[in-house]
Amino acid sequence: MVTATLAELTEKGYDQLTVDAICHRAGVHKATVYRRWGGVDGLIADALALSADQPWPIPDTGNVDEDIQLLALEVYTTFTDPDLRTTPTALIGAALRSTLGAAALSAFFTARHQQAAEIVTRAVKRGQLPASVDPVELVRAATAPLYHRLFITGEPLDEPAAHRAAAAALLAARASLFDAAAP
Amino acid sequence: MVTATLAELTEKGYDQLTVDAICHRAGVHKATVYRRWGGVDGLIADALALSADQPWPIPDTGNVDEDIQLLALEVYTTFTDPDLRTTPTALIGAALRSTLGAAALSAFFTARHQQAAEIVTRAVKRGQLPASVDPVELVRAATAPLYHRLFITGEPLDEPAAHRAAAAALLAARASLFDAAAP
Repeated sequence: MVTATLAELTEKGYDQLTVDAICHRAGVHKATVYRRWGGVDGLIADALALSADQPWPIPDTGNVDEDIQLLALEVYTTFTDPDLRTTPTALIGAALRSTLGAAALSAFFTARHQQAAEIVTRAVKRGQLPASVDPVELVRAATAPLYHRLFITGEPLDEPAAHRAAAAALLAARASLFDAAAP
Repeated sequence: MVTATLAELTEKGYDQLTVDAICHRAGVHKATVYRRWGGVDGLIADALALSADQPWPIPDTGNVDEDIQLLALEVYTTFTDPDLRTTPTALIGAALRSTLGAAALSAFFTARHQQAAEIVTRAVKRGQLPASVDPVELVRAATAPLYHRLFITGEPLDEPAAHRAAAAALLAARASLFDAAAP
């Protein structure tokens, strides 16, 4: 169902997305889809939940500056490469269009931030970052400016913007601006 | 029409927003609205265009660190104060739900960034920031993490997050990370 949903979404966009077309593509009965997913927004939320669970290669070069740069670059590439960008761009755009989708998107980012925080905890163990830094805050800061351009301001995203976001986040972390709150 | 659109949007949300109800509230004929605005998404785009044109108080304390902190705090207050947050939150949320709205939102942020860039150009004249800094990039960096939490990840936004965003943006600007590209 997820594959059919993403294919329909990518081809037709959210405004033209129908349960009918998704069912036809997947060879599944409409009643089943309405019962299990409620409608297109439930299918989109499910596609995001599955994406959140999927393992993805977290940069691990041994150098945190390089790892955080690669993390930002991965976001840049995912949403700008003509061969890669269509489906993830459509999926996040669609998620922003419903309450159900927005909740799934929030859970998706929580999962991604937690996974990528590994970059920071490894760097702390290697002594490349102060132990006081909040790993999720550093990951969030390195990628937030990219998503902000892509999905809020609609400004163009180029590679220097990804480098700036990563470098600014590392600088702030080393200046103790992203320290975890004292327990 | 904008007042009626915002009132209906705030009361009922985007999913329940209808041209009928907006026309009834404004005492305007439906045909006029469809002719001039095309539908609810055109009305929302128009509301954003009017907001973009409205003058707003740009912080001007004489100290750029304070000004950028106040800028981030203004975003924080606008979208978290129970008396203020409802309409702007609904308006930006609604704009993200249509292509027409997204284009208007992009123009809205371009206008806001340009206006707030004044904080940076004044600071450069006072010698508080290097002349090489890109004023819009500093403004963008100080506010992007807030919009990212509010409208993309759905993470809670608190005052320390606003302070962190402002401080990290100033630090990066002073480290020449936000320098304008050489002409």
